[in-house]
Amino acid sequence: MEKRKGGFTLPGESGYEELTLRLAEKWGADVIRDSDGTELSEDIIHAGYGIYSTLCIIRDHNEWAAGNRDKLQQTFLCTEPVVAVNGESGLTVKLMDGFFEEQFEINDCPASMKYWQVYDRTSNLLVSSKDWTYDKEQKAVTVQNVVPWHKYTVSFLAYRIWEEISMYNHTTNNWDKEHLMQIDPRYPTVREYLKGWLKSWCEEHPDTTVVRFTSLFYNFVWIWGAYEERRSLFSDWGSYDFTVSELALDEFAKEYGYSLTAEDFINQGKLHVTHMPGDAHKADWMKFINDFVISFGKELVDIVHEHGKKAYVFYDDSWVGLEPYNGRFGEFGFDGLIKCVFSGYEARLCAGVDVPVHELRLHPYLFPVGLGGAPTFMEGGNPALEAKKYWNRIRRALLRVPVDRIGLGGYLHLTEGFPDFCDYIEQVTDEFHMIRDFHQKGKPYTIKTKVAVLHYWGALRSWTLSGHFHETYQHDLIHINEALAGLPVEVCFLSFEDIKAGRLNGVDVVINAGYAKSAWSGGDAWKDDKVVEILTKWVYEGGVFLGADEPSAVTGYDTYFRMAHVLGVDEDTGERICHGKWPVHASDPEGIVPAGASIAPRSNRYLTDKATKVLLENEGMPLVTVHDFGKGKGIYLASFQLTDENTRLLYQLIRYAGQEGVTGIYMTDNSYTECDYYPDSGKLVVINNTESRQITKVETHIGQVSLTLGAFETAVVDL
Amino acid sequence: MEKRKGGFTLPGESGYEELTLRLAEKWGADVIRDSDGTELSEDIIHAGYGIYSTLCIIRDHNEWAAGNRDKLQQTFLCTEPVVAVNGESGLTVKLMDGFFEEQFEINDCPASMKYWQVYDRTSNLLVSSKDWTYDKEQKAVTVQNVVPWHKYTVSFLAYRIWEEISMYNHTTNNWDKEHLMQIDPRYPTVREYLKGWLKSWCEEHPDTTVVRFTSLFYNFVWIWGAYEERRSLFSDWGSYDFTVSELALDEFAKEYGYSLTAEDFINQGKLHVTHMPGDAHKADWMKFINDFVISFGKELVDIVHEHGKKAYVFYDDSWVGLEPYNGRFGEFGFDGLIKCVFSGYEARLCAGVDVPVHELRLHPYLFPVGLGGAPTFMEGGNPALEAKKYWNRIRRALLRVPVDRIGLGGYLHLTEGFPDFCDYIEQVTDEFHMIRDFHQKGKPYTIKTKVAVLHYWGALRSWTLSGHFHETYQHDLIHINEALAGLPVEVCFLSFEDIKAGRLNGVDVVINAGYAKSAWSGGDAWKDDKVVEILTKWVYEGGVFLGADEPSAVTGYDTYFRMAHVLGVDEDTGERICHGKWPVHASDPEGIVPAGASIAPRSNRYLTDKATKVLLENEGMPLVTVHDFGKGKGIYLASFQLTDENTRLLYQLIRYAGQEGVTGIYMTDNSYTECDYYPDSGKLVVINNTESRQITKVETHIGQVSLTLGAFETAVVDL
Repeated sequence: MEKRKGGFTLPGESGYEELTLRLAEKWGADVIRDSDGTELSEDIIHAGYGIYSTLCIIRDHNEWAAGNRDKLQQTFLCTEPVVAVNGESGLTVKLMDGFFEEQFEINDCPASMKYWQVYDRTSNLLVSSKDWTYDKEQKAVTVQNVVPWHKYTVSFLAYRIWEEISMYNHTTNNWDKEHLMQIDPRYPTVREYLKGWLKSWCEEHPDTTVVRFTSLFYNFVWIWGAYEERRSLFSDWGSYDFTVSELALDEFAKEYGYSLTAEDFINQGKLHVTHMPGDAHKADWMKFINDFVISFGKELVDIVHEHGKKAYVFYDDSWVGLEPYNGRFGEFGFDGLIKCVFSGYEARLCAGVDVPVHELRLHPYLFPVGLGGAPTFMEGGNPALEAKKYWNRIRRALLRVPVDRIGLGGYLHLTEGFPDFCDYIEQVTDEFHMIRDFHQKGKPYTIKTKVAVLHYWGALRSWTLSGHFHETYQHDLIHINEALAGLPVEVCFLSFEDIKAGRLNGVDVVINAGYAKSAWSGGDAWKDDKVVEILTKWVYEGGVFLGADEPSAVTGYDTYFRMAHVLGVDEDTGERICHGKWPVHASDPEGIVPAGASIAPRSNRYLTDKATKVLLENEGMPLVTVHDFGKGKGIYLASFQLTDENTRLLYQLIRYAGQEGVTGIYMTDNSYTECDYYPDSGKLVVINNTESRQITKVETHIGQVSLTLGAFETAVVDL
Repeated sequence: MEKRKGGFTLPGESGYEELTLRLAEKWGADVIRDSDGTELSEDIIHAGYGIYSTLCIIRDHNEWAAGNRDKLQQTFLCTEPVVAVNGESGLTVKLMDGFFEEQFEINDCPASMKYWQVYDRTSNLLVSSKDWTYDKEQKAVTVQNVVPWHKYTVSFLAYRIWEEISMYNHTTNNWDKEHLMQIDPRYPTVREYLKGWLKSWCEEHPDTTVVRFTSLFYNFVWIWGAYEERRSLFSDWGSYDFTVSELALDEFAKEYGYSLTAEDFINQGKLHVTHMPGDAHKADWMKFINDFVISFGKELVDIVHEHGKKAYVFYDDSWVGLEPYNGRFGEFGFDGLIKCVFSGYEARLCAGVDVPVHELRLHPYLFPVGLGGAPTFMEGGNPALEAKKYWNRIRRALLRVPVDRIGLGGYLHLTEGFPDFCDYIEQVTDEFHMIRDFHQKGKPYTIKTKVAVLHYWGALRSWTLSGHFHETYQHDLIHINEALAGLPVEVCFLSFEDIKAGRLNGVDVVINAGYAKSAWSGGDAWKDDKVVEILTKWVYEGGVFLGADEPSAVTGYDTYFRMAHVLGVDEDTGERICHGKWPVHASDPEGIVPAGASIAPRSNRYLTDKATKVLLENEGMPLVTVHDFGKGKGIYLASFQLTDENTRLLYQLIRYAGQEGVTGIYMTDNSYTECDYYPDSGKLVVINNTESRQITKVETHIGQVSLTLGAFETAVVDL
């Protein structure tokens, strides 16, 4: 492969100027960035590279924040329930019990306290504010007239006095610096201050070509607890809880004509995890916050542009309200979006956003330790192997869709002991350039069958569920999304509203995967008869409904899976434990299930129809089934875990569903390898997804191609 | 042990007079019975033994039944749902599709058809009777004005034209006889006929000393399907569906002031399995049927008594409406109750009924094949070993409570090739007599701690869930009941209404075990705050709530387990998937969990309190936990499967809960053995529950006793 330059962002490091420039050359960088906690020296800044400067707009103002502690960001907190074991003398609830004192400070100003709520969690009843008092000194609420033996909680507003990402880095990387605080641009004085600050910053940094916002205003939710052994009380990358304040609530009430309450956020102490369906109040709040983030975000972008710089945004950390998939992202005016990626689906997510430049920040990060504290750039680490494994996941996605740039983050000097890592990144940049070039000439070969993933959030949560794979691995759908990310199949994401709006047109396979009541299965959305009617008709006329785990599950009907008549499979939640079940005998004459595919059983699934065909079973439990319905089919997977063989199973099921044949042209005969064909380039790219050597064959329009690929190898064949 | 006679019922067989009398002597029989399909010869009848004659009152009248087919018993049936793929021309549903034609015949008389219902199962709406018509010829209903893509069912009344037990025996034992039909005493003419018939029968059988009803009028539900591979469509030993008829429904409406509908029985096609909570309509119907069964049953018992005979009832098969545990059983006037037993809990069930004589019919039945068609009294069978294993389960229950009689059933001549079986039954009768004698002198030692099992049905379903162990093994509670059946612990069964009525007094441990929504866990009964309040207070003041699987689980509250504040454990149904959980580290300094105890994990259980102590865990999943609450405790078991070690675990948990020490007096030190001490007899009975030799020690008031026991041995020690 030829040496190419450009499209690579290198984290520079002062004091390591020679290293910085040498690696910039080796990796073909065109841009040098600073990283969190680092600064670029003049030598680096003037070496002829583009300069990214990272700004965390809401936390780089500790001095100002210290003088304006009533402008810090907030959240609702809810105490653990306390049982009233002695009703007579009143029940006292200590508000901060169990919370991390370094993260939170009670906001007990009158404007805040009007949003506090005391709940009887036994009866689910709100306690009248007449029945409780707050003791500022004791930081405790005392409830009178309690019902003996009921349990009570207090929901209250708290300032967040330590910005969460910096709090995390302190802990993980043993930082010992001042605790950064985050200010809330909801307050006009904060906005004025920030705009002034950004203008000055732009003027003071003439060499910066790109301002990289890391990221905008509101962090994903991360509530910490008092005890080391359970530090994280709640963390959800997709939740909006950290956007709240008494001012925001007041403004919301004015704009929407009704008031939200603490309980709208607290939700019985469960909060609103993205993995569960939302509700109308949450939807309104998200829109309200999104409006605000766009409006003030655009003001900041405009300032950057006025100074002749570009504005990129890092889609992580304080991303809340950014929403690259709700159709309004263009309003910000960003020039680029940077996504940190562990997985292929994240590359797809980045690539699909409507923005001029898409950039991936690859892993591993140049930090001594990585995920979960495992060594990376230190003794015992193997960053080259890590890089190979991550690139292996990203590569298959990048073979499907192009991105514009890649890059690294962290401390460059840490690479010094790891020359194999430096060599491998050079190879990665070469492969990246090559793939990008193929895309520029024309799209890769794609089968005709079109897939839609159906869930509560629809396109808003395209590809991701709520953060990274390792944060959401418990959900079958992320495994499916990750498998899809590298398959030669067109994929879109639909909500139940989309189904009703007729957006099934052109779709061949609908995937619905998740446990009952989850956002991914759909929960109460399945109570809408219209959804069932439309999908039933669509399948009868030729569509394929592919369900995994508890697709279309909802209680209240004759079947638990609303689509049981299509799937030919249902789940017995106990009512049918005395009902006879059809015996489960597996047979797969068409070879749809590849060797090595492995589907974990889930209990109490049963065949509703004698005609349901079982392709794979385990001790009488159906694992993979097919059921004809009119001209279409229902396909059921008891579960789906990401493996190379299961990825192949999914692909073959999709091909089978689309009547394109289980195997065919431009498809390897070895599940551990995959390939993509670029007709306009005349190139076939074959990849080995494993750490061991693989022999593979591919049928092409000029006949069969045979290859032997080394570990993780990328091979290119001219066709 | 000394040889004793009496308390044993032998199945006699004509043509095998010598064998009959020889075994009657060997087994110490005082009574000889006939079995289904056998008759006793004069030689046997006049040999000086009491004579039991079995009568199946509702099916021994085929000639009369054939002339009165409109008096046959019935049931509601519901078709499989049919999707309306073409709305315009109407939707035709064939009623008998999928049902066993030899079991059912549509009852399409006008009085019946007024109870038929057509349902739109997609919208859950009843279809107006104006919108459907019935074609008698085609046995089909055609529905007009269907909503396209919705699915429809038809619920209808059908006569049952083949009595189910005889149908089963035909199939299992390859009988080739006339299909017996069952007549419904709901009709006055049937009652008159049966009374006359019974009078004649009594007069014609002067030698019969006991009329053994097998059993009364209505069989447990058993609906068969058209296909061999799924013959049983529904079977529930506890359900009342087979008691229905248009006449009964009309009479119910008159008495209760409202009409039941087909849907009250059909329940979306799920029917009302006993494992789920019932509802008010079902309760009314059960009472209505119970009233009837008692009133007509008593008339029959009176006839038997008038003829100087005793009346026993076999509590199985057509038992529905008999209900030995609803407080009204005495009204029948029965002299004895016979229970067929596979398990210890069934012996406890029999022993606890308020009736003069309690008799157990032991297993194996003298049939060529046993459960599931496995060989017993034929080549390949080992009936002696089977008998040992069954007796092993019964024995430990009989050591706790006395019954009056035991016996066998079936064809006596089949024992001829199995002398070891005959010898073993002799030993069983000896052990039975010995144990009965001990009980007569005084009760066995019982620990102070008193246990109540809490579930929806309460005392009505004491010990059993809905039939035998092998029919209900999927439920943790039957494993717990079976373990309790032989423990030196006083046990009662409470409903949620009992809890509210103050019946927790004197109880030390409440067990609640089952999956969510089941009758055993309690389902919506847990929505009653009063229940939660009472139990919370009771535990706080010293009680112990022991939950297994999904105790107190119900949706709609802050925790899934309503008693989570007591248990210190809850289940995450998805809402808390992003919440941090307390780490699970097991430690059992008090040795509560015996060696070999094995609790299967269930997923998504988590600790709600830092203070919850984990005694046993598996890969971070809590299996056995203890949580202090006031002076009491919550104890949680992720699951419970019957093993000797787990039985010991349960016993030790109960002792621990009652603060009687994990181990103590009159307790073996080997989980494979158990013992009972009879203070008034001065006897310690030690049993080996295993097929292998065991060494065991018991602390007693006169010091430690050491024993070595052979397989299944019963040893007696004088103290």
